[in-house]
Amino acid sequence: MSGGRSPKAWGISIPSDFFVMQHLLICPNAFKASLSASEAALLIAEGVRKSDLTCVIYQLPIADGGDGTLEVVTPYLELEWIFETVQGPMGSPVSARYGINRPKGLAVIELAEASGIRHVEPSKRNVWAASTYGTGQLLRKAMESGAEIVYLTVGGSATVDGGLGLLAGMGVRLLDGEGTEISPQLSALDQVESIDVTAVLPLLRNVSIKVLCDVDNPLLGSRGAAAVFGPQKGAREADVEALEKKLAHWAMILHRQFGKHIHQLPGAGAAGGVAGMMHAAFGAQLVNGADLVLSWAGFDRLLAACDWVITGEGRIDEQTEFGKGPGLVASRAHQLGKPVIGLSGGVAAGLQRLPHFDVLFPIINEPIALNDAMQLTRENLERTAFQIGQLIHRSQRRRFSGENS
Amino acid sequence: MSGGRSPKAWGISIPSDFFVMQHLLICPNAFKASLSASEAALLIAEGVRKSDLTCVIYQLPIADGGDGTLEVVTPYLELEWIFETVQGPMGSPVSARYGINRPKGLAVIELAEASGIRHVEPSKRNVWAASTYGTGQLLRKAMESGAEIVYLTVGGSATVDGGLGLLAGMGVRLLDGEGTEISPQLSALDQVESIDVTAVLPLLRNVSIKVLCDVDNPLLGSRGAAAVFGPQKGAREADVEALEKKLAHWAMILHRQFGKHIHQLPGAGAAGGVAGMMHAAFGAQLVNGADLVLSWAGFDRLLAACDWVITGEGRIDEQTEFGKGPGLVASRAHQLGKPVIGLSGGVAAGLQRLPHFDVLFPIINEPIALNDAMQLTRENLERTAFQIGQLIHRSQRRRFSGENS
Repeated sequence: MSGGRSPKAWGISIPSDFFVMQHLLICPNAFKASLSASEAALLIAEGVRKSDLTCVIYQLPIADGGDGTLEVVTPYLELEWIFETVQGPMGSPVSARYGINRPKGLAVIELAEASGIRHVEPSKRNVWAASTYGTGQLLRKAMESGAEIVYLTVGGSATVDGGLGLLAGMGVRLLDGEGTEISPQLSALDQVESIDVTAVLPLLRNVSIKVLCDVDNPLLGSRGAAAVFGPQKGAREADVEALEKKLAHWAMILHRQFGKHIHQLPGAGAAGGVAGMMHAAFGAQLVNGADLVLSWAGFDRLLAACDWVITGEGRIDEQTEFGKGPGLVASRAHQLGKPVIGLSGGVAAGLQRLPHFDVLFPIINEPIALNDAMQLTRENLERTAFQIGQLIHRSQRRRFSGENS
Repeated sequence: MSGGRSPKAWGISIPSDFFVMQHLLICPNAFKASLSASEAALLIAEGVRKSDLTCVIYQLPIADGGDGTLEVVTPYLELEWIFETVQGPMGSPVSARYGINRPKGLAVIELAEASGIRHVEPSKRNVWAASTYGTGQLLRKAMESGAEIVYLTVGGSATVDGGLGLLAGMGVRLLDGEGTEISPQLSALDQVESIDVTAVLPLLRNVSIKVLCDVDNPLLGSRGAAAVFGPQKGAREADVEALEKKLAHWAMILHRQFGKHIHQLPGAGAAGGVAGMMHAAFGAQLVNGADLVLSWAGFDRLLAACDWVITGEGRIDEQTEFGKGPGLVASRAHQLGKPVIGLSGGVAAGLQRLPHFDVLFPIINEPIALNDAMQLTRENLERTAFQIGQLIHRSQRRRFSGENS
């Protein structure tokens, strides 16, 4: 059959509500304390599916190296989960997973699994007691199981220990000025004068480590680990000052021992200095978590094939544009001229427009207290996605009704 | 020049973001206690105008016979406002307007102007003291100024006085069983045995009255004026029972005197029985306020010319579909296949879809207390309209980019 004949020539009449199939890429971050990224993607997809819009939906939950990243990347990297009982942030044991793809010799460790603030009730947060020891134990397990490429996500930590605990958990010995081993307490951080890594050297052979950072804060100073993240981990003002001094000493020791200067390294302040320590001690590369997760997810390829992008997270504000998951999604989509819709539990008052987002909708249904709103996150997210589906559908329908009338 | 040549034949290339001009009909109700209907229409229009959507906007604020109807219909009926000082609902004087179009001999009286609950603080509401006397004074003034067609809107009243005060305010005498004039107190309603209208008969000659009802409740019974509206006007349970008895007596007297049976007349319970009394005593026709306002506004003609309808009110719930302004707008638009977007301060939890609305968006931006939310109504309404403009715009842009690529 020859091409080029119009439907009319074929004797086919196009109904007035005929429309072009829309392809939607749904790639939200987690909605903090309410929904995981994959739950959010599923609810948005459900809402759109219940609308009158006929469309193809791709669910591609995303993460930025923060709490929940391991779960998001598991299908993308085809990971299996290994559960280990290790030391939790406050000393008592926790069951923590890491992900491994044995054929590829690749492991993903989420610091928040063993050392996350999610394990500590707000009233019990204590920055002096919180340790990354358990993450060190997990890292060691992952390396022992044969992983040669190790990704460490550092968001969501309970700690500002400079990674002291992590080193000890791996089996590294910390020595004072007289060569005596000291216990890996944060309070003793400024007594460490040298670091003995001999016990872990065999493990580290052929292993390359990347740290997925969700922030680019430096280790020290007013944007540093103690000043910015200390308070949310339970540090009072006096604690922040004391922590800052200890971390400065620690950076000096790391420099003397490994020759790496981490004072101004962007991201070194992530997870209370864990990122900076990993760079100094193990040559780990610090990478933008969101960027790497998007590449694992095959985001760019799907983006090119889609007509719409829907992303979102717990709250959208002026910071959303910078580096975090939905901001990166929006900027990539914007570059390709794809319309971007941002959904969130709340939009900051006065915020009408962000440069890379075409449309921003808060999902909340009515004036309500935060706790009550969080009970409704699921239904509100689905409802909002439904309305967006409806609006696109009606816009689409007009496309042809005008031309046929 | 002969027609039928495509732009290409004319040597014109259509840019890939070319789109068809959209015509938007913006016809909100008032957002109760926050925005008048015309303010709401203006803010929605502003939001859409700030978006990237190129469109023609028609602002057509609507009302349903409730508080604010006079202001809404003023431009549609080309009314001038006459201010009079009359008796307020609780006895002290208030300045109240009515609208008049002298060439057409037409007047609009809003009962809430003289006798509205907006004049009474919540703590001072007292159903026994509240009187429609001032509305009677206004009605008389309007008739004296030559109006031959009088529209009375009855929403937003503070009263359950059966229109007793209104009659007295017009100059009608109320007599007890012995023919003695009695003071128009609600407590004395059941002592009225006859109604002497002789003093107002000259005024009523050639005058036709229509009552714009925003509800269709009957005078008596479980859906009646006392049971349903008494409590929001300050009546306690015992008051409701007493009011019911007095109104039943009143209906009997009205029937005996004027031969009109108002017991089951739909809408007779509006404004605490004023609507029923007006029907009995003056042959007033009770009409659906929303319906009449839409016809005054020329809604149907504009609707036919528009691509989108945006309506809204303070709250959207299952009741919105029935008779009130936005519900009627939506049902008319739905009949013509025009997409309808409903905006509101809040959408009831669990409400995803209403049959005549295509899209429903609450305007609230984040979890917040009602009072704080009401401070943000203006910016939230504009912001939400902006997002809708953006979403339609992006849907439109795709219309041609696909066809040209």
